[in-house]
Amino acid sequence: MFKKILIANRGEIALRVIRTCKEMGIKTVAVYSKADADSLHVRFADEAVCIGPAPSSESYLKMDRIIAAAEITNADAIHPGYGFLSENAKFSKLCEEHEIKFIGASAEMISKMGDKATAKATMIAAGVPCIPGSEGILDTYEEAEKIAVDMGFPVMLKATAGGGGKGMRAVWKVEDLKPAWDSARMEAKAAFGNDGMYMEKLIEEPRHIEIQIVGDSYGKACHLSERDCSVQRRHQKLTEETPSPFMTDQLRNDMGEAAVKAAEYIKYEGAGTVEFLVDKHRNFYFMEMNTRIQVEHPITEEVVDYDLIREQILVAAGVPISGKNYTPQLHSIECRINAEDPYKGFRPAPGKITSYHAPGGHGVRVDTHAYAGYMIPPNYDSMIAKLIVTAQTREEAINKMKRALDEYVIEGIKTTIPFHRQLMDHPDYVAGNYTTKFMEDFEMK
Amino acid sequence: MFKKILIANRGEIALRVIRTCKEMGIKTVAVYSKADADSLHVRFADEAVCIGPAPSSESYLKMDRIIAAAEITNADAIHPGYGFLSENAKFSKLCEEHEIKFIGASAEMISKMGDKATAKATMIAAGVPCIPGSEGILDTYEEAEKIAVDMGFPVMLKATAGGGGKGMRAVWKVEDLKPAWDSARMEAKAAFGNDGMYMEKLIEEPRHIEIQIVGDSYGKACHLSERDCSVQRRHQKLTEETPSPFMTDQLRNDMGEAAVKAAEYIKYEGAGTVEFLVDKHRNFYFMEMNTRIQVEHPITEEVVDYDLIREQILVAAGVPISGKNYTPQLHSIECRINAEDPYKGFRPAPGKITSYHAPGGHGVRVDTHAYAGYMIPPNYDSMIAKLIVTAQTREEAINKMKRALDEYVIEGIKTTIPFHRQLMDHPDYVAGNYTTKFMEDFEMK
Repeated sequence: MFKKILIANRGEIALRVIRTCKEMGIKTVAVYSKADADSLHVRFADEAVCIGPAPSSESYLKMDRIIAAAEITNADAIHPGYGFLSENAKFSKLCEEHEIKFIGASAEMISKMGDKATAKATMIAAGVPCIPGSEGILDTYEEAEKIAVDMGFPVMLKATAGGGGKGMRAVWKVEDLKPAWDSARMEAKAAFGNDGMYMEKLIEEPRHIEIQIVGDSYGKACHLSERDCSVQRRHQKLTEETPSPFMTDQLRNDMGEAAVKAAEYIKYEGAGTVEFLVDKHRNFYFMEMNTRIQVEHPITEEVVDYDLIREQILVAAGVPISGKNYTPQLHSIECRINAEDPYKGFRPAPGKITSYHAPGGHGVRVDTHAYAGYMIPPNYDSMIAKLIVTAQTREEAINKMKRALDEYVIEGIKTTIPFHRQLMDHPDYVAGNYTTKFMEDFEMK
Repeated sequence: MFKKILIANRGEIALRVIRTCKEMGIKTVAVYSKADADSLHVRFADEAVCIGPAPSSESYLKMDRIIAAAEITNADAIHPGYGFLSENAKFSKLCEEHEIKFIGASAEMISKMGDKATAKATMIAAGVPCIPGSEGILDTYEEAEKIAVDMGFPVMLKATAGGGGKGMRAVWKVEDLKPAWDSARMEAKAAFGNDGMYMEKLIEEPRHIEIQIVGDSYGKACHLSERDCSVQRRHQKLTEETPSPFMTDQLRNDMGEAAVKAAEYIKYEGAGTVEFLVDKHRNFYFMEMNTRIQVEHPITEEVVDYDLIREQILVAAGVPISGKNYTPQLHSIECRINAEDPYKGFRPAPGKITSYHAPGGHGVRVDTHAYAGYMIPPNYDSMIAKLIVTAQTREEAINKMKRALDEYVIEGIKTTIPFHRQLMDHPDYVAGNYTTKFMEDFEMK
């Protein structure tokens, strides 16, 4: 087992990893930017190394400094959390070259799954249902038009290097295709330096339902059921739940089986997520695979009583998994508490937290690096806490979430707490009747 | 179902009851003393009524003011929490007279179980094993000596109105009996205004193991397994766990059956606890019955996934219980975080909390009314938080508790956190090898 793990991340996920390492008796090294000197992950790690100034490009993305920090402190593994370097093939390879175990996917796996067109081709080969569309990157507009007409509208244009909604266009009729093609390519070029495009059938009334999987280094994988992440704003998840209110036993079996098949086909090692779009007829289609821990992993942990970070560490150390699939016994919901003003288009609202009280009690979990007096730096992701509640039924979980949100006091900054509170009262949310389009019509009261 | 519940308590338990009421859609009324005006239970209740100055005798024990507060606010039930009026027969009766449902035991039940000698006689009649000793109150010293000699030393003298160790004396030989008798009576008279004494066989290597029960208004009861509360200092519990490391399936069945028999014999309604002493041969003896929610109830909730406050409310509203007994599926430990200095004989250390960060993450629950900036009044019990961790095994739970204690930041006052941290490393605690005498030899490092 590893003796010391360096956590190449910040905020709640750095704290989350430190927690499990402590419980496993593994020493921890935090790295931090100058803006994060007062952060809790620095305080709670056994050692901490400053790796540069605030912009991520000068610290949390600075591979050589992180590797150096690991070498100086004798860390034998690096946990990358999510975001930053967690799905960076070069960094994974660099760790391997320095004989530091990267607790995540191999460079090869990241490359394979990180490029969406390649990922899709791999999944088709594995026999996992994929959205009909172009086979890989479209070379010309003419090719795009031919495929769209053959497949039938509506279609979705997507940047191959895309993410966060950039370089994506839904097109409902042929005369709109050319303008969409041009603007999406321009956007993709600006955002990713890569204007490669592909096209897919647009899924109607789509739900974003993902399957958590864990694979070991012996080619075995299992799944831990689904998370419904359909409540999204501009492709940013806001709240997640498990089980999905749209799920059936049959669909769970089928999706779980497909996800395990995908993981075993590529010999996936570690914790990963296979994201699917599910249409109104409960057809499901592979969307992408995330080769890292997800922000929303705690809801899975709560319903199957399973520490996913621990499992990542065990698998990275060569421990085989049991191979058992898990089915949720309870209902869990996560609300992402962001330092954003939901009354002003969710615009970021960093600043100093002047007063703080987190909800507690039965079935309430809070994963956060926030505290009274904490100055939220403007340089990073606006998520400051994850509020997770778990109960016997969905109705009880919603009621628990309402009281927990009512009890959550964060003063000095604006947060998304009022948004979540209104969401929990929204008739369509309460009925479980929502798709990824839900937020397009949502308005704050 | 009740529309509005008044909570006749303060601190974490008032908050705890408010939480469940909110989840059940029941309105809440807080009562508070002037010293508690800034307390969270005041902030989070739907309404709040000030009932007097700080001394409990002028506020939280002032029955007429509490009844008036309930009448003014139209509360149809009162939850008494623990301590204060929770086991006060007169208050229970007063509520009944004012047609306000007391969420707790009836006056008759409280009287029956509150007097230890009467409680014991009742349990003997119910067929529950009791500690051999005097039948009821001892009339004279001569009677005490005769029983002690007949039964054999060691024996324990106890004040019939006793609690918290006052008026108790262990006696190992006959020549020590008279001085112990005199001093225990004097102490009991001073503490309770009642010098009635009884005597019991002293139990060697005793463990304090209690069974949580719930009874409904139709005479049905069930049990939710045990809590081991043997780690006590001067009869004050410091940490509790479930399952007990001393437990066997057979013993749990036997104790659970005895507790249910006791509850059904007296037609007990509500949540209650039957406390037993268990000797080194796993003989168990009825000690007392608490006709209220216990401080340590959350560990039971965590291992059987059951909201005990909710159950109290349902039962009080006349809902029948399922009658199913529960067995722990997980392991849970609670540490009571008190504003006391463990390096100075646990002396109370009230004051202002200047900085506060509670542990979070998987398997961690914090029930508290503390926050950064909170001024702990010197007038009340010193418990400011309960830290509860739950894991698959006892070993994992201890590791989780260690990391949670390490992560718990409370600055500005002294707390018992360092004590608990050392306890979690103590070889006898780790081995589960502890009795109620454990703290007599414990020294802080």
